[in-house]
Amino acid sequence: MSSVLVTGANRGIGLGLTRHLLFNPSVATVIATARDVDSAKELKALSCPKLHIIQLEVVNEDSIANAVKKVSEIVGENGLDFLINNAGIGDAMTPLNGELSKAKIASVYEVNAIAPLLISNKFYPLLKKAAAKKGSAQIAMISSGLGSLETSKNIPKEMHFTPYGMVQSAVNMLTRRIAVEWKEDNIRATTFCPGWVKTDMGTDKAQYTVDESTIPLTKLILSLTEEHNGKYYRYNGETIPW
Amino acid sequence: MSSVLVTGANRGIGLGLTRHLLFNPSVATVIATARDVDSAKELKALSCPKLHIIQLEVVNEDSIANAVKKVSEIVGENGLDFLINNAGIGDAMTPLNGELSKAKIASVYEVNAIAPLLISNKFYPLLKKAAAKKGSAQIAMISSGLGSLETSKNIPKEMHFTPYGMVQSAVNMLTRRIAVEWKEDNIRATTFCPGWVKTDMGTDKAQYTVDESTIPLTKLILSLTEEHNGKYYRYNGETIPW
Ligand SMILES: NC(=O)c1ccc[n+]([C@@H]2O[C@H](COP(=O)([O-])OP(=O)(O)OC[C@H]3O[C@@H](n4cnc5c(N)ncnc54)[C@H](OP(=O)(O)O)[C@@H]3O)[C@@H](O)[C@H]2O)c1
Ligand SMILES: NC(=O)c1ccc[n+]([C@@H]2O[C@H](COP(=O)([O-])OP(=O)(O)OC[C@H]3O[C@@H](n4cnc5c(N)ncnc54)[C@H](OP(=O)(O)O)[C@@H]3O)[C@@H](O)[C@H]2O)c1
Repeated sequence: MSSVLVTGANRGIGLGLTRHLLFNPSVATVIATARDVDSAKELKALSCPKLHIIQLEVVNEDSIANAVKKVSEIVGENGLDFLINNAGIGDAMTPLNGELSKAKIASVYEVNAIAPLLISNKFYPLLKKAAAKKGSAQIAMISSGLGSLETSKNIPKEMHFTPYGMVQSAVNMLTRRIAVEWKEDNIRATTFCPGWVKTDMGTDKAQYTVDESTIPLTKLILSLTEEHNGKYYRYNGETIPW
Repeated sequence: MSSVLVTGANRGIGLGLTRHLLFNPSVATVIATARDVDSAKELKALSCPKLHIIQLEVVNEDSIANAVKKVSEIVGENGLDFLINNAGIGDAMTPLNGELSKAKIASVYEVNAIAPLLISNKFYPLLKKAAAKKGSAQIAMISSGLGSLETSKNIPKEMHFTPYGMVQSAVNMLTRRIAVEWKEDNIRATTFCPGWVKTDMGTDKAQYTVDESTIPLTKLILSLTEEHNGKYYRYNGETIPW
């Protein structure tokens, strides 16, 4: 029986993952984070004894420290089996020859790349504890196919996703290096593209519903093995080239 | 006859590139930037009529705007043929389970990744002008082999270069997308690893002298063609996988 933490669980893909984790019989504890717990109505409506909702602003180091403390109380000596770094912000179209906002570019990096680095770092002791007990613990990064350097050359210029794509390539490097640095601790990391999903970020025009993405993605994350360590997959298990 | 701008030219690899660009008969104008021109003694000692030294603090938008104005006065209607984004900062060993400084991680991204994005954006009109006259203009990113996602799994964990590697993967995505977005303007972008070089950043223990890296690197940059657009090379022309 596993414990799983999902960041940014109050809406979108994080909420979908939380719902399907709660349905899964192998999962005993789901810790869902929201930066404003009071207004996380849909999350609270899931009301299930497996579910713990805690506050987390992913770019705030005090908030991270508090979350670690609370999770530690919840999971105790078993540690944390799965950490899903899902919280993120998108980026409106940013043409490379248009107006660029330095502050916006920096904040996309902070939320989507620095936060997963800091959070993984602070949850390391709890992940290590779980890995020592069960043989392994797992970090899942919800990155994007737009982080693939290989395939980026095939995406039309009109997509103008450079600052967002840069950040997702960086998240992929974070995943690769956790896979190396924490290998002997049996803490693994894997990076995912959820597909283009109908959420506030993905918009109504997106290709998949939240369920179409998060049902297979939840299953995939829960079934990760040593073979998937440091690799990059679509929500349906297809490999993405770097 | 070409014009070339090199950022961070007062020491290390930038100074080496500047020196060998000045020696090259195909280069008419070298614009070398330093954030403190007064103390750029070695750069000033190169005293050569082809050389123009201008102030540039790469993370300061006013300083970038000023530099564009000065370069525009120097190159006039010919525009700028080559932009070499070389300025950068390193990162002391950063173990993923150690103390992390959020401010330091953010600043490595700001100098090494956001600055090349902003600078390329602001020099776009001058590059476009040169490309319209000569058929092409070229951006060279001095990134690092540590940005390769593919090879990162072979680097021992003791190297602890995650925040720096993340940033260089991001620079590689920037390169890839400039290659797509500005293709029709005939502005190309290519990303390079200079090798491990004896500079303040590389330390005395490094493998190559500045000349051993920058002599071939200068030649390579000046010989770039459409075939190299959006690709990743070592200083000696070997391809690096993403
Ligand atoms: N949707 C897609 O098509 C798509 C495609 C590829 C990748 N992704 C990735 O999938 C992940 C989830 O995206 P989504 O579509 O579900 O986005 P979303 O609907 O916009 O939801 C984003 C979630 O992240 C949280 N968040 C943002 N900034 C935060 C911060 N500073 N601290 C704490 N939480 C924060 C949000 O909380 P608040 O409600 O408090 O803002 C929200 O819970 C993101 O990492 C995104 O990059 C999405
Ligand atoms: N050396 C290596 O082994 C190696 C390996 C791979 C990649 N690289 C890359 O090669 C490039 C040059 O490295 P290097 O070894 O020559 O480093 P270096 O000797 O430390 O020189 C760095 C240069 O960048 C400038 N710089 C740093 N921050 C700046 C800022 N905010 N604004 C303007 N200029 C700034 C410095 O100016 P100040 O003197 O004013 O600080 C200096 O001119 C870097 O991008 C680095 O990542 C180096």
